[in-house]
Amino acid sequence: MTESRKPILYSYFRSSCSWRVRIEALPRLCCLWSPLALALKSIDYETIPINLVKDGGQQFSEEFQALNPMKQVPALKIDGITIGQSLAIIEYLEETRPTPRLLPQDPKKRAQVRMISDLITSGIQPLQNLSVLKQVGQENQLTWAQEVISFGFNALEQILRGTAGKYCVGDEVSMADLCLVPQVANAERFKVDFTPYPTISRINKSLLALEAFQVSHPCRQPDTPPELRA
Amino acid sequence: MTESRKPILYSYFRSSCSWRVRIEALPRLCCLWSPLALALKSIDYETIPINLVKDGGQQFSEEFQALNPMKQVPALKIDGITIGQSLAIIEYLEETRPTPRLLPQDPKKRAQVRMISDLITSGIQPLQNLSVLKQVGQENQLTWAQEVISFGFNALEQILRGTAGKYCVGDEVSMADLCLVPQVANAERFKVDFTPYPTISRINKSLLALEAFQVSHPCRQPDTPPELRA
Repeated sequence: MTESRKPILYSYFRSSCSWRVRIEALPRLCCLWSPLALALKSIDYETIPINLVKDGGQQFSEEFQALNPMKQVPALKIDGITIGQSLAIIEYLEETRPTPRLLPQDPKKRAQVRMISDLITSGIQPLQNLSVLKQVGQENQLTWAQEVISFGFNALEQILRGTAGKYCVGDEVSMADLCLVPQVANAERFKVDFTPYPTISRINKSLLALEAFQVSHPCRQPDTPPELRA
Repeated sequence: MTESRKPILYSYFRSSCSWRVRIEALPRLCCLWSPLALALKSIDYETIPINLVKDGGQQFSEEFQALNPMKQVPALKIDGITIGQSLAIIEYLEETRPTPRLLPQDPKKRAQVRMISDLITSGIQPLQNLSVLKQVGQENQLTWAQEVISFGFNALEQILRGTAGKYCVGDEVSMADLCLVPQVANAERFKVDFTPYPTISRINKSLLALEAFQVSHPCRQPDTPPELRA
């Protein structure tokens, strides 16, 4: 494959891990919550959709495996390297395109952002993704997904009560918010009861009002099927 | 609970996630691979063992849940805050006690370190931990664990061929190595066949020769049962 000048995001419209990265790229493109950022770095990128269900899963193709041996989206080709794993991508963009910042300056608040992000990306999402659900079996999928998400959300709700302002940590959008919204969307797909999670619900609603979260939404991607578009 | 002057690590001898953090703390204490570090910051810490199996799991106690709502080890009480999630802890220590460094200076190499770390902590470990294995059922546990570890190690072996020097990324010990060694130990417990993973095996062997990896080993913790001591 030849090197494109624009970064290339390998993505799937419904993948919550891909969505995290799409939000990340967009604030830097659209500069929505920091007027300062308007004058600063922005990222324009090209999307190559990887359909996780079609043809037995396009992530298993030889071409894609060579790019990301983990056979998962997202993967981002940028600055001559290819990075897999959504948080590694987000941290790289944060270090190389630092404005607007998605990690607070205070190390203790950064630790809170990373703890919440890791709780979602290690403690919830992997347990309810497509490959695990296949193993669990059709008839148990819904219960399994609801249980693992609720277990994580019980912890998250308690943590957010201590850290949240308008968003997950204080009043600035952070990496934790990029993880929260796609996970809440997964929870909604699995019909999780949100009654015990007023803080999660409130933050999610505030974030979904921001354009970066709307334009990166699974229902508005180049590969979103017509019947799921909104 | 009163605030201790020393950081407190809530740990379980056999928890691979706790081991990651124990290694992290130790180089800063023992300064093994950087003579420069001898003159610099070090961390002495106290361990409070949380037995994940005794009494139905001590991580479910009210006292521990108040500290870490996710009901998992490790958790580190330090500088007046409590941090859960091993990578969030390691990143915090890296930012507040930067010597010796466990993330390279070059952002592209940092991205590789984080990608490998996330691959293990999100893509492998959560799928073979105690809570998932319980759900999978006694008779399927070994096959399940072998499959998810082998799937991840196939990717890891391919990635490491491109990034490794003496260790996971180049010739300096990094956060990725702190994730690798405990995951390899898990793989050995589940009798994974290492024939396809010569690079993983070689790096693991080099790391286990370092004292920080030896003294933090599950077989040498305050809560290691006598029959598992070595």
